This record gives sequence, C-alpha cells and structure tokens, in this order.
Amino acid sequence: MFPYNAHNRQLLETALGNEPADLVIRDGILMDVYTGRVVPHRSVAVAGRWIAYVGPDAVYAIGERTRVIEADGRVIAPGFIDPHTHIANFWNISDFLQYAIPGGTTTYITEVEGFCFASGAEGFRAFLDQVRDRPVKIYCLIPPMVSTSPAAAARFITAEETRGLLRDEQVIGLGESYWQSAILTPDDRIIHLIQETVKAGKTVEGHAAGAVDRRLAAYAAAGATSCHEAVSSEDVLSRLEMGYCVMLREGHVRKDLESIRPLIGKIDLSRCTLATDGADPEFLLSEGYFTDVIQKAVEMGLEPIEAIRMATLNPAAHFGLDHLIGGIAPGRFADILILPAPETMSPDLVISEGRVIAEGGTTLIPLPRVPHPDQILKTVHIPLIAPEKLAVPLSACSKPGGVRTMDIQENGLVAREGFAEVSSEKETVSPDPGSDLLKIVFIERVSGRGERFVGFVRGWGQKRGAVASSLVWDASGIVAIGADDLDLAGAINRVIELQGGTVLALGGEIAREIPFPIGGYSSERRIEELTAEASALQKAVRDLGSNLPSPRLTLETLASAAIPFIRITEKGYFRFRENDYVGV
Amino acid sequence: MFPYNAHNRQLLETALGNEPADLVIRDGILMDVYTGRVVPHRSVAVAGRWIAYVGPDAVYAIGERTRVIEADGRVIAPGFIDPHTHIANFWNISDFLQYAIPGGTTTYITEVEGFCFASGAEGFRAFLDQVRDRPVKIYCLIPPMVSTSPAAAARFITAEETRGLLRDEQVIGLGESYWQSAILTPDDRIIHLIQETVKAGKTVEGHAAGAVDRRLAAYAAAGATSCHEAVSSEDVLSRLEMGYCVMLREGHVRKDLESIRPLIGKIDLSRCTLATDGADPEFLLSEGYFTDVIQKAVEMGLEPIEAIRMATLNPAAHFGLDHLIGGIAPGRFADILILPAPETMSPDLVISEGRVIAEGGTTLIPLPRVPHPDQILKTVHIPLIAPEKLAVPLSACSKPGGVRTMDIQENGLVAREGFAEVSSEKETVSPDPGSDLLKIVFIERVSGRGERFVGFVRGWGQKRGAVASSLVWDASGIVAIGADDLDLAGAINRVIELQGGTVLALGGEIAREIPFPIGGYSSERRIEELTAEASALQKAVRDLGSNLPSPRLTLETLASAAIPFIRITEKGYFRFRENDYVGV
Repeated sequence: MFPYNAHNRQLLETALGNEPADLVIRDGILMDVYTGRVVPHRSVAVAGRWIAYVGPDAVYAIGERTRVIEADGRVIAPGFIDPHTHIANFWNISDFLQYAIPGGTTTYITEVEGFCFASGAEGFRAFLDQVRDRPVKIYCLIPPMVSTSPAAAARFITAEETRGLLRDEQVIGLGESYWQSAILTPDDRIIHLIQETVKAGKTVEGHAAGAVDRRLAAYAAAGATSCHEAVSSEDVLSRLEMGYCVMLREGHVRKDLESIRPLIGKIDLSRCTLATDGADPEFLLSEGYFTDVIQKAVEMGLEPIEAIRMATLNPAAHFGLDHLIGGIAPGRFADILILPAPETMSPDLVISEGRVIAEGGTTLIPLPRVPHPDQILKTVHIPLIAPEKLAVPLSACSKPGGVRTMDIQENGLVAREGFAEVSSEKETVSPDPGSDLLKIVFIERVSGRGERFVGFVRGWGQKRGAVASSLVWDASGIVAIGADDLDLAGAINRVIELQGGTVLALGGEIAREIPFPIGGYSSERRIEELTAEASALQKAVRDLGSNLPSPRLTLETLASAAIPFIRITEKGYFRFRENDYVGV
Repeated sequence: MFPYNAHNRQLLETALGNEPADLVIRDGILMDVYTGRVVPHRSVAVAGRWIAYVGPDAVYAIGERTRVIEADGRVIAPGFIDPHTHIANFWNISDFLQYAIPGGTTTYITEVEGFCFASGAEGFRAFLDQVRDRPVKIYCLIPPMVSTSPAAAARFITAEETRGLLRDEQVIGLGESYWQSAILTPDDRIIHLIQETVKAGKTVEGHAAGAVDRRLAAYAAAGATSCHEAVSSEDVLSRLEMGYCVMLREGHVRKDLESIRPLIGKIDLSRCTLATDGADPEFLLSEGYFTDVIQKAVEMGLEPIEAIRMATLNPAAHFGLDHLIGGIAPGRFADILILPAPETMSPDLVISEGRVIAEGGTTLIPLPRVPHPDQILKTVHIPLIAPEKLAVPLSACSKPGGVRTMDIQENGLVAREGFAEVSSEKETVSPDPGSDLLKIVFIERVSGRGERFVGFVRGWGQKRGAVASSLVWDASGIVAIGADDLDLAGAINRVIELQGGTVLALGGEIAREIPFPIGGYSSERRIEELTAEASALQKAVRDLGSNLPSPRLTLETLASAAIPFIRITEKGYFRFRENDYVGV
C-alpha cells in the first residue's frame, strides 16, 4: 500500500471555507517548487495533518481555535526530504530526531541494512516499528543485502518476503544494490527483488560508484533508477542521460556536491537531488542534519528555489510521493518551514504534519522511545573464542616468506591487496606492530559456529591492543584488528558477551566499550553519551598509533561490498576485480 | 500491479556486450529529455522490447542478426505520450491506431467512460481486453462517472470494483472527475474512489474547468493531481502553484495551448504536458494524431527539446511511469522516434517496443481486431416508444404561457436556461421549428423502463425531422432532438433496434443511420466509412437548418456533467448553479 490521505473530506471543507483551519500561516514568501517561482504574499491553511489551501489569503479559514502564524514576509518552504540516508544504526532513533528535526528535514528515506544483516526480514520489521507514527516521516528501503560474506545469505530477505514488506506504506522501495555485485554476477537474486519492487509500483535505488558507459547502462537496464555516487560533472551528466535520478551526496563519508557546480544554469536539474548518505554523530550534535548541504548548494551559486527543489520536490517526485510531500499545496502533508530569508536554510519554525515541532533550533516535542522486541536483542551467535584459535600457521601462506595483506589507504576506506614479508622462523605468523602489520579477523555471527578468517592488515597503525566491532557494513559478523591474539580474543569475546558493540582491549583488559545490543548495530544509551564514548574510543585508538581520519568508520567498512579493492570475509579476503576469495 | 520489465537479465547482458542487440540505432542527435540537452553522436541498443544502452556508440552490440538503423545525424526522440485522451468511443481501436501511429504517439492514456456508462465495470474490462498486447501502449483510467443523470448510478464502478481493477497493470489511475460534482456535493463516493487509487499508488486525474482559489484548492485537497482545463496563463500558474500537473489541451473540442505562451522562458515547465483530450475522426484521417500539437508548441517558441519533454518525460513522470517510458534510457521500453530534424515532429520512423511500426507516415504492421464479448453488444434496455408518449401537456409548464428551454450557445457546447412563450390554445406544447423551438428528449437505458424527460431546446436549428443518439457523454441514455414527435420516436426506436447508434429520421423514414452496437458507443465499421457516414449525417442536419459548428459533438454533450449551465436528464433539466432538477 502507498501512504494516502484519509481526510480529504475535512480538507476540502476547510479549503472551501466551510470548516475552520487548525493552522493558518499568513503573508509569507512562497517557495513555489512547482514552477520555480518565489511568490510574495502567500498564505497557507492547514487542517489536521494536511494542507488545505495555498493562495493570496487564508484569512477566511481562521476560526476561534485556529492557530495563526504571521510569516511577516519570511519564507514559506516545504519541509526538506533527504532521499538517501542511513539512520538505523548507532543511536536510538528518538535521540537522532531530537537533533535532526530543528534543521527542517521532515522526511527521511533510509536504508535499513544493519538490522537485516542481524535478523533478516524480522530485523526490518523491528526497525519499521521504530519509525511508525513519528512526528516526521521516515520511509524505509528494503536492503538487497549485497555482501561479500557468504554467511550473510542466511539473512537475505527473499523475493516473497520483499513482496510482503512492500505492502507496508512505510516501505517505499528497494535500497541501494552495489552495481558490481548486482550486475556482474550471473545470480538473478537481486533482479528478482527489483522486479517485485517495480511490480509494486515502488522505486529501486542504485549505487553506481565508478560505473561508466556500458556498465552504467547495464545497471540501469537491471532496474536501478538512482545513483548517489556521481563524483564529477561527467558522472552527473552520464547518469542523468541514462535516466538515473542523481542524488548529490554531501555527507561525512564523502562530499560530492561540487560536481554539480559546472552544470549550474546549463542543464535542467529536476532529476537531481541533494542527499547526506548518512550522518556522523558528532556532526549531528554540533551542526544538525542536512540543512548545511542545502545551504552549501546556495553558496555554490544555485538559486535558493533550485536548491530547495533539490531537497523537496525532486526527491518526492523520484519516489512517486509528490502528491503527498515536497511542496506547499493542498492535499499534501503540512510539512512546512518558515525560513528567515530566501537564502537562509536554517528554519525559524519547523512544522510537520500540521504541528510546530521545532523553533529556533530547538525541538519542541517529546520523542518517546519505542521498545525493541526481544528477538533483536540476541543476534550475535558466536561461541567465545580462545586466543590460540586466532593463530595463522606459516603453512597457510600462499607464497613463501610472506602473507597477503589488506592495505588500508590514506582515506581509511579503500584497501588494496598487499604482500608483507614475515619471519619463517616460527610455525605461526605473528602481527608486527612495529612495521604496522596487524591481524584482522572476520567472524560470521549467523551459523552459530563462528566461521572465521584471520588475515593481515596494514595502514591501521595501532601499536598495541585490539579493537572489535559488530557494527560492520554489509555483513553479519564481527571485524577485529589487533596487535596480539590475547587482546583480539578479548575484544571479540566482549562483543559477543555484550551481544553487539565496539570494544577496545588492551593488555588483557577491556579498555573501552560501547554496547550495541540492538541487533549488534545500535544502542539505547543517550546519544550524547554514546557519541562521547565513540569519540573516546576513537581517540584511544589514535593514541595507540593509528593515523586514520576515522578509525571507527574504517572498521565499519572493512567487510563492505561497497568499497574497493579487497575486503575481509569469513571465507578469506574477497577481491573485487578477480571476484574471488583468497587466503593469506 | 504496475507494468514491469521481466527481461532485465537479457537487457543487462546486451548492455555489457555479452549478447547481441536486436536493434542498434547509430549516430543520431539525442533528445536528452532528462537534462534538456540535445546531444549529438548518440547511439542506442535495443534488446527485445527494451532499451539496453544509450551512449557514444553501440557498435559493440551489433551481432549477425542485429538490425542497424543509421540515423545519420537525424534526431532520436522518445515516443510521444498523450496523457489525456478519449479513444474508446466511435471507432474500432485497431482502425484508430492505424491512423494515429505514424505520428509517433506510442503511449495513449485514455478515459474509458462510454463503455462504463453502458455496462459498468464489465464494460471497462471489455475495453481493457481491446487494448492489451497492442503494438503501442494504451493505459486506461477508471472513470469516476460523474453524471447529472440519476439512472447512471446503476452503472457506477464501486470502490471495491475499483480496488480490483487497479490491480491490472493496464490501469494506471482514476479518470477525470468534474470538480463541481466531486467537491460541491456532500457525497463521498468519489473521495472513496480517490483514496483507493492513491492507496494503490496510482494517479487521480482532474478536470477543474473554471475553478479558482478556494475551489481550486478544495479540488486538489480532495485528491486531484492534474488539470487539462487551464485556458489562460493565470489558470496555468494557479494550477501549478497548487500542485496540479497542467495538461495543455489542444484538440478538436478546445484549443488552449496559447495559454502557455506568456510563460515560456519564465517558469519551469516540468509539470506541464501537452494533451489532445480526444480526437476528431475527420482530423485523425487527414492530419493524424497529436503530432500537430507538439509541432504547434515548437512554432509558438518552445525549444524543441522542451516541447518534446512535455509530450514524453513530463507525462511519464506524472503517472509514475518514467522508469518505463518517456525517455531514451536503459530499462525503458524501446519507444523511439527518428525525426528528420530537431524542429520537425513528424517522424521518419516510429519504433515501439523495439519494432519499427511506421515509416514515412505509413503504419507497417497489421492491427487485427479483437472481438467484443456478447454482453457489450446488448446494452440499450429501453422498450420501443410510441410518438404520443412524447407529448408535453400544457399543464406541465412551470410558468403560464411558456416553457423552460435549453438554449444552446453559438459554440454548440454551453447551454443556458431560457424561456419560450408557447401557444396555450392546445392541451400539449408542440415544437415550433419556425422559431427554432425543438423538443429534446433524454431516455435512460439502464432500468429497462426507459425513464425519460421531454423538454425544449433552442439553438439547434433543424427545421424538420429528428436525430437521436446513444453516443452521449457522461450518461447512460439516448438524447434526441426533433421538430415532430413522429420522427423523434422513429429516430429513438431505430437507435433501440440497432442497440446503439446515431440516427436521423425525416418524414417518418430513417434518413441516415450510424450503428454503434458496441455498448452503444462504438462501431465495427471501417473508420473511413464511419467517418464518411458521420460527416454525411452532420451535413444532413445542417442542410435541415442547423448552423452549429458540429451538431454531432453538440448532441453528444447535451447530457454531460462537464459543461455548463443546463443539461438534460431523465429527471428533467439539471441546473449546475442551482444544483437542481427542473421540468419544462
């Protein structure tokens, strides 16, 4: 089912003047996203959660109980829509919203991959229950769960489950499927998910990082209709020309908004949107959410109305929701911002579904927590591990005198295959922190047997201790990196005991820990505390020698199918170019 | 269900170069509707019914059996989409297509009102069976069946039937509901249909003729998302601002395209489309279909790419079908036109779903007829009528000395209420052709009893004889106009005998007749013959004294809920402003 308005009758009677409005906004400058005009002296009437009227003056709709907001020449704009984000992990969603709402984002379209790698469709439903009936809209995308880890298959959401989930009005499409794994394999699994989604009339999100020409075409042919991985103006043009909606990402992982600059004024941007692709907790707490992206677009030279369209109407239209959100028009949800001036994106007032929910940067409404079901609290199915089980016998090395390594590059995301010479004096290969050679472990948490692979990593930089985390992208498992087996096992075992978390072990002790017991991906702790803990853990890792910009982010991504060139799985390293699994 | 591509695998293999294409078009100027650019040296590869690739050169996809079309610098454009038409009546759809296809329209979005006023949901399904698996796409809208004739209620498609019909992928939304009757009544029937449609993720078409400000808002609040009744640039702006998709109509009933002229270059037109609102048979045979509208838009000063967008991507996006049609991009249907030059809209070649279906103005493919089910051939349930039953007793007159009349205005569409003095010497009121006072009859054809009303009309002009027709808009019945009761009864009875048709009776004989036995609305006769008959009948009516521009069109519309100010029903005249039924 799709979201719909069950109160059209009430709304039309208010529009006609037969019933008073609940809220009237008077004398604002309307950002008319439909025509691209900025229209002075406009007024809006709201009945319940919906807009009943927009036009010269809604004074006729003012009754005794009508709340009247005088815009006094300030700007009336639609609530912002972030069409591609990841807000299901780390924090409790109520805490997230408290910090995100004042910036004016009233619709969040989020991937829900973590909960699903933890518990499949059951995890997805658990997150859906977190986001229903919130004061803002959080629409969810079903993750295709492209993974390099074979164990993840046990958690895949099937085509039949997808069909069922798509009936939920909170579910508006299929999430990003990394193009390599969606089209360069003979496996039709994701194509079947795509077909179910298109049959249901919902959208299929893409992720075409680095794809050009034939491969970019093949991915569109497979059914992907958006891409948030354009990193140059050539990428923007080629994607648009092939029918993709281009979501210009400007977030903590990458900042690509500049790629649109050479195209401003040269092409039609109605199939371009802005997007965050997720938020960093520290940035969220200090700067808020998404507003900065729209502001930056204006500062780059986009007309404010154009920047606003890219964060309102354009994403709404892409998802086929423009009859409900993305504009100030009758029949739409009353998601309305009062901005101080056309070029200033930080709202004075945030109205969502007819309610004033934030004012002057502060959230005004309570955001009660929704309890999680028990099943999502026990998802790390791994027996505790003894340090000696992490030994790598010299005989396992693929070449004499050395081991294959994952070499993390400077940005902390990409890793390349490497080769490190090791001593052949002992029967096992040990980490050598002095030359930045550490062990890296992946243990799957699905089968109950804890299938694992122990390899080697360079570029991490820690001189002592070990980190382990269940908060890993695109896989059902724990990733750990360490300078010795004792701390490695200690960190891993603590994550298992916590049923999810990120842990630093040092000298046989647990030095720092952040529990993520909700599916192994998120926490009920207050976001401020959680963010402080994450920063402290990150600082501790840096104090132990790591020079990475964000060790936490690096750790999360080491098993991800989204990032080249080599990743770790329970079956060995996975190499994208060779499309194979290899050992040390 | 929504239309989808079941062959993504084949398509992506072709895109990648692993399988040869069925068709490759080389070296054309691409109308890139997504960015608004005109891109030289572009090539397209097609696999089966779908586009696999667009880019610099698809030569890699040419295999032994690949058909290669050298565009040689000509234009590659998407097939045209007419987002609002009425093509279910009058002709056999195969004949219609033969004349329509060479102009390049590869998608028709049509209302299906006639078949439904004849047989309700059964009639709708009968038309669906006519348009499945055609060489072009014909998507249908479920008619809300707004009618001034109470008898029509027996044929209304219910909310439950609507829910069922919306599951058909050929059905993409709810058809036009005239705003007055949809919102100015306390009846929620149409609101329920709208809600069913929105829940199913499909669109709700509007018809907001003359609506402004509050009423225009109320109609949008009720759920209408388009309007093809903007007749001025103010109408265009007000509708866009209220979130409507504006379909600029340029057809045989009205021509409103000029209303966009003052806005060219001033506003974003991505939520504007072109549309025909139906086709006149004579014009279809002589000039074709829709191409003239797009050509006129170019001649008015729109950039060719902008005019093409308004007939391709913009309508596709409005209906949420832009992942399937409306652009030249991978994963879309291979609906492609080769135009001789950017500013010339008549295609050299029309390709639909990968097949060349027309070349140089000629349809190349057979268009076999699909038989109609028996039920749709017997839909005029009226007992034959004796002339004396059409008498109007003097005592029935609402005012002494005269009768209330429908006064048809010069354009032949609008009628105003009038009053004609009549002789009080006889007990019944007779027509007076000398002073242009004729009888007008409406007989419902639903109940089996033939409930009827006999009134008076001026402005028709016929001096002798009578016409009757079952081909009437928005009602289930026969409309007849005549100078004497004998010919009136004769014409009506012949329509009943034919189980549908348009008949001219003169001096007690049938002078001309066009059988419309398919639901009373369409014919199996060859379109050329049918059009000639219609012209001959129209000429005969004019020869008998009528000065109307199109008596046939006037006759069709006299019971329509779409046109002010007074209409005829079986219950009397219906007056829109007063919202009442009145007698003579």
